[in-house]
Amino acid sequence: MANDAIKPLALTLGEPAGIGPDITIAAWLRRRELNLPVFYLLGDEAFIVRRAKALEKALGADIRIASVSPSEAAATFTEALPVVATGVRATAEPGKPDESSAQAALASIRQAVGDVRAGRASAVVTNPIAKSVLYRAGFRHPGHTEFLAELAATDGRVPQPVMMLWSPRLAVVPVTIHVSLRDALVQLTSELIVSTVRIAASELKSRFGIDRPRIAISGLNPHAGEDGSLGHEEQTVIAPALKVLRNDGIEARGPLPADTMFHEAARATYDCAVCMYHDQALIPIKTVAFDDAVNVTLGLPFIRTSPDHGTAFDIAGTAKANPASLIAALKLASRMAAAQS
Amino acid sequence: MANDAIKPLALTLGEPAGIGPDITIAAWLRRRELNLPVFYLLGDEAFIVRRAKALEKALGADIRIASVSPSEAAATFTEALPVVATGVRATAEPGKPDESSAQAALASIRQAVGDVRAGRASAVVTNPIAKSVLYRAGFRHPGHTEFLAELAATDGRVPQPVMMLWSPRLAVVPVTIHVSLRDALVQLTSELIVSTVRIAASELKSRFGIDRPRIAISGLNPHAGEDGSLGHEEQTVIAPALKVLRNDGIEARGPLPADTMFHEAARATYDCAVCMYHDQALIPIKTVAFDDAVNVTLGLPFIRTSPDHGTAFDIAGTAKANPASLIAALKLASRMAAAQS
Repeated sequence: MANDAIKPLALTLGEPAGIGPDITIAAWLRRRELNLPVFYLLGDEAFIVRRAKALEKALGADIRIASVSPSEAAATFTEALPVVATGVRATAEPGKPDESSAQAALASIRQAVGDVRAGRASAVVTNPIAKSVLYRAGFRHPGHTEFLAELAATDGRVPQPVMMLWSPRLAVVPVTIHVSLRDALVQLTSELIVSTVRIAASELKSRFGIDRPRIAISGLNPHAGEDGSLGHEEQTVIAPALKVLRNDGIEARGPLPADTMFHEAARATYDCAVCMYHDQALIPIKTVAFDDAVNVTLGLPFIRTSPDHGTAFDIAGTAKANPASLIAALKLASRMAAAQS
Repeated sequence: MANDAIKPLALTLGEPAGIGPDITIAAWLRRRELNLPVFYLLGDEAFIVRRAKALEKALGADIRIASVSPSEAAATFTEALPVVATGVRATAEPGKPDESSAQAALASIRQAVGDVRAGRASAVVTNPIAKSVLYRAGFRHPGHTEFLAELAATDGRVPQPVMMLWSPRLAVVPVTIHVSLRDALVQLTSELIVSTVRIAASELKSRFGIDRPRIAISGLNPHAGEDGSLGHEEQTVIAPALKVLRNDGIEARGPLPADTMFHEAARATYDCAVCMYHDQALIPIKTVAFDDAVNVTLGLPFIRTSPDHGTAFDIAGTAKANPASLIAALKLASRMAAAQS
């Protein structure tokens, strides 16, 4: 293990009524078998102890929890799941978010960002939140990522967060993300492609250790527009962006027909595919890496990864949730921290 | 072999300067090994003999060609590649379409349709054409499929062709096809979804032998619109179509988030995915079945399959072309003919 020199990962609670606590416990139980990096959960110790008790029988394991400070996490990790207190109580039952949910989830995120910015943690790994629960409590950010970007602001400047979905088989970055397909067509500009690819290329280098990242850029239309007969954005929006990026010295190729970019032989020719809209990026990665894709936020002054699924209220508290994506998120965060250190 | 009672497959020449002749010969050479159904090529015997001569060394095989009528194809097939004359000469060199190309390609298609409608062939399998070559020669159809639909007209009524991409792992049908993404948003209507799914469901039953086809219908927007917050077409266009289809007795599910529809476990829950636009359907199938996906045209009064690739002018005549998709197209056409007979 190369973890000695590296600070622990700060793992957020997520929505307490969701599967976040479950997969956290399930991942910790496999710490030895999978040689997991040290992490600590930011939350309410009493809440986690209750959930652990409820899961112990189904998981067939003795779950020990220890209340610690971040600097004690490494020494504790092999024997007990380290929990760092946020001071905010959580009372929600599995599947039933309550009035404590939003504040408990938000306090955990804030504290994780505080820890990583102060050097107490090497990266932030976030458990899933429920946006609708946060909205009811007055949350006013479009989502988890934008909230993190705001917490990451320096001198009032909010960085542009870039979403990457990563798996050992494929990494994708959508240029437009959580908007309707109609709005994606409006939002898509050369400038947005350029700023997105610049961030992706820079972090593939600094945080993934890829000296000269090869970026494959998709077209927007079928067959990448077929020389303009199936749409013009390849010529008017994407090609000009590629020109700027190549002038930057970025190894970017495109616009490529999206349908032939993602089979095994094609994937071997690039390090990251940059796609024009959500499904163009997420269909291929969820097809080839459904269980273990990791959501990575690039563009922030710290490392942030996240499992690529939601709160799954319907199976919370049942030990049925698959921790594979959280495990992949923890491992990737640790690898990224090592690459940049 | 269950081919005794079944008529041969009529295989078109395609663009003579493309890889159609190459993959036809390569497929025929593997007839015994793969137990291929009997097919005959509609073309110019002298042209095929010349191409065969050019390929013999690279393929390391003795290629015999026999000029036959459709009814003689079965008896000839084991010993020689059966060629049925169209009477139109082809003179193009590999990679170089010439003035003979368009007429040779079109005559072959017309004759194949004539054969299958007259009961001399059990299905039409088409080699790739080059639309730009045909356009220069005055061709005025949007593409291969629309031309076939016109040839299939009965009493002046042109049927609605429906494109399916089929592989043993996944079958997909795009509702809108070869139009820009912008135009796809305009073309997408409840009526088009209904007519497309009706044809798909009907032929999955009659030509694929699936008693009660399970159809999965995608949303248009990310997360299938997330209850309207990421687009409204799921509620205004797709859901009403689903209602009509279910009233028809069709087992249709949706609108489903497109990104989670195509991993292995999800694919096992349906027989065909109906998608709203080209890349939504073609990204997943080309990701999981790049070499052996087959293009099937539903909605015609005869069976038509086709390899799922183009003319590949750059490798025509070199024996480098992979016949896997044509082989899959021949096998699927034969299976469909058997199911409907």
